[in-house]
Amino acid sequence: MKHKTLKFEDGVLKLIDQRILPLEIQYYEANNYKEVCEAIKKMVVRGAPAIGATGAFGYYLAVNESFMDQGNIKIGNIKEAKEELLATRPTAVNLQWGIKRMEKVLKNNLNKDIKEDEIVNRLLKEARQIAREDVESNKKLGEFGNELIAQGDNILTHCNAGALATVGYGTALGVIRAAHYENKKIKVYIDETRPRLQGASLTAFEMLEEDIPATLIVDSVAATLMQKKIIDKVVVGADRIAKNGDTANKIGTFMLSVVAQKYNIPFYIAAPTSTIDFDIEKGEDIEIEQREDKEVTEIRSVQIAPKGIDVYNPAFDVTPSENITAIITEKGIVKPPFKENIEKLLI
Amino acid sequence: MKHKTLKFEDGVLKLIDQRILPLEIQYYEANNYKEVCEAIKKMVVRGAPAIGATGAFGYYLAVNESFMDQGNIKIGNIKEAKEELLATRPTAVNLQWGIKRMEKVLKNNLNKDIKEDEIVNRLLKEARQIAREDVESNKKLGEFGNELIAQGDNILTHCNAGALATVGYGTALGVIRAAHYENKKIKVYIDETRPRLQGASLTAFEMLEEDIPATLIVDSVAATLMQKKIIDKVVVGADRIAKNGDTANKIGTFMLSVVAQKYNIPFYIAAPTSTIDFDIEKGEDIEIEQREDKEVTEIRSVQIAPKGIDVYNPAFDVTPSENITAIITEKGIVKPPFKENIEKLLI
Repeated sequence: MKHKTLKFEDGVLKLIDQRILPLEIQYYEANNYKEVCEAIKKMVVRGAPAIGATGAFGYYLAVNESFMDQGNIKIGNIKEAKEELLATRPTAVNLQWGIKRMEKVLKNNLNKDIKEDEIVNRLLKEARQIAREDVESNKKLGEFGNELIAQGDNILTHCNAGALATVGYGTALGVIRAAHYENKKIKVYIDETRPRLQGASLTAFEMLEEDIPATLIVDSVAATLMQKKIIDKVVVGADRIAKNGDTANKIGTFMLSVVAQKYNIPFYIAAPTSTIDFDIEKGEDIEIEQREDKEVTEIRSVQIAPKGIDVYNPAFDVTPSENITAIITEKGIVKPPFKENIEKLLI
Repeated sequence: MKHKTLKFEDGVLKLIDQRILPLEIQYYEANNYKEVCEAIKKMVVRGAPAIGATGAFGYYLAVNESFMDQGNIKIGNIKEAKEELLATRPTAVNLQWGIKRMEKVLKNNLNKDIKEDEIVNRLLKEARQIAREDVESNKKLGEFGNELIAQGDNILTHCNAGALATVGYGTALGVIRAAHYENKKIKVYIDETRPRLQGASLTAFEMLEEDIPATLIVDSVAATLMQKKIIDKVVVGADRIAKNGDTANKIGTFMLSVVAQKYNIPFYIAAPTSTIDFDIEKGEDIEIEQREDKEVTEIRSVQIAPKGIDVYNPAFDVTPSENITAIITEKGIVKPPFKENIEKLLI
């Protein structure tokens, strides 16, 4: 991708503003952790891996602010900042994962005889490392996933699990990129992904930028394409994967999995192992974020439904593991039985 | 409904403009058959039964124009007008059905010793009769459908098969109205129905106007509600039903039927018998209208996808009869085996 999802320059976290893509390309600047919280909450940045890295930079900014404003790192302030960052979006586990990694670095260094400005430096290094690793792990994941893609496949994807959902390259779109770069002559069908239209705005943008053949559809057309045997494979991302393989992902994913199963179409989840939550046994235990009515009743500020209508707007759904053919990670392809094979990733 | 879908006054067909509902209530005036064609093509009026009645008035206007402009009814002109009317939308069979009824009246009267101005009058009477019958048949259909609805049911519906899709009362919403008027304390879940959002704009409007408890969702949330056992029944309309029960309806209907089947949720089609096409054996033979890309890439003139992206935009899909629990008509409830039981309707 020509445009980076996030970059950290001169003490400022710059995030491509995904609310106005593809109409405008503009960077949102977060100068402190509170502005990072705002960016995640308002979905300037979205996508589980991208939020993980953003959260890590937010944590660094919080520590740096404490150090700069007060002369030393105040643990109370950091704890407060951590809670605020974690509360921005509840479903994507990568946010917790990124912040935990940062916290570990802070704890490990605080107990040693290290100057606080050096600790602050080490935290920035860790955040940069998380970002770098994300791109690397996506590329590995893409290579593994590419093994599952045949010449000329028509691949259906949902939402945006692309370069814009990660620090770069992408998960589901990482698999698609790898297959495309190998000249497999694949074609992508993009679900527009209501309510926030990440497919229409972001995935369509990424496919056009890289000249990957792609067709945009409204979400319910996916079932018709599967009925007509046009789709060979479904590849989507994930926001949180339970220990048994149940997967929370953008609303609409579950529906695709049901239709794919009916027509025996392989259904793949592409996600780094940082998306697996080893504290969660099964999908039912995953907290699903409810978002505001306006996302449904207005589109880019244009009213589309009558005022006063009640709305139900869950941001994610849970696809049970029995509907999933395999989970593609940077450590390899995980097949059923998921419970056993996911555990093996811990080794 | 306070506002009528269509009314014929002073030689003018007045159609509530469904493109701007619910934001504005405004009537489009068709003074001649060409303006009727425009109204159908541009979806000022939509919904199979409403289009059937609109087409009938269009046919009357064509005959009247010929008579007024040329002093007598020119068969060549009428044939031309008929073809233009039929070409406005290819999937809904009611358009053909309405026009056939009008044509029959014209033919029957032309061969007799009747003055041409009287023939013109009889055609207007027939069009009015078609409109009246539509409301009556919806009410009968609603009563039959109501027998299938239990106290407290949560009913999922798609698109708008309501008063606005018919001359009044509605098919799927006719069933819902009948159950609501009987105080069954039902609740309606409304699919927004991308791309044209008839659920969000029209069905939500109708439910609010009549104080029927309703919740609006994006289309893919329907699967989650069925997974969570929140939906008791699915009731939708139809644009064309084949002799074997396969049903063409608004895009998204098929997807619902697949998920409903998985969870053993009754899936009902509500449609007058004029929607059954006895010339079509099975769903595959139904022509599916493809509509312009803009319906997907723009919403109420706001661009939502990048310029240059390819789009696939079928207006309807086909639900195979094996996914349908029953078809609710004004002549009664048709259950499987559909082929045999649909034939019995001809008697």
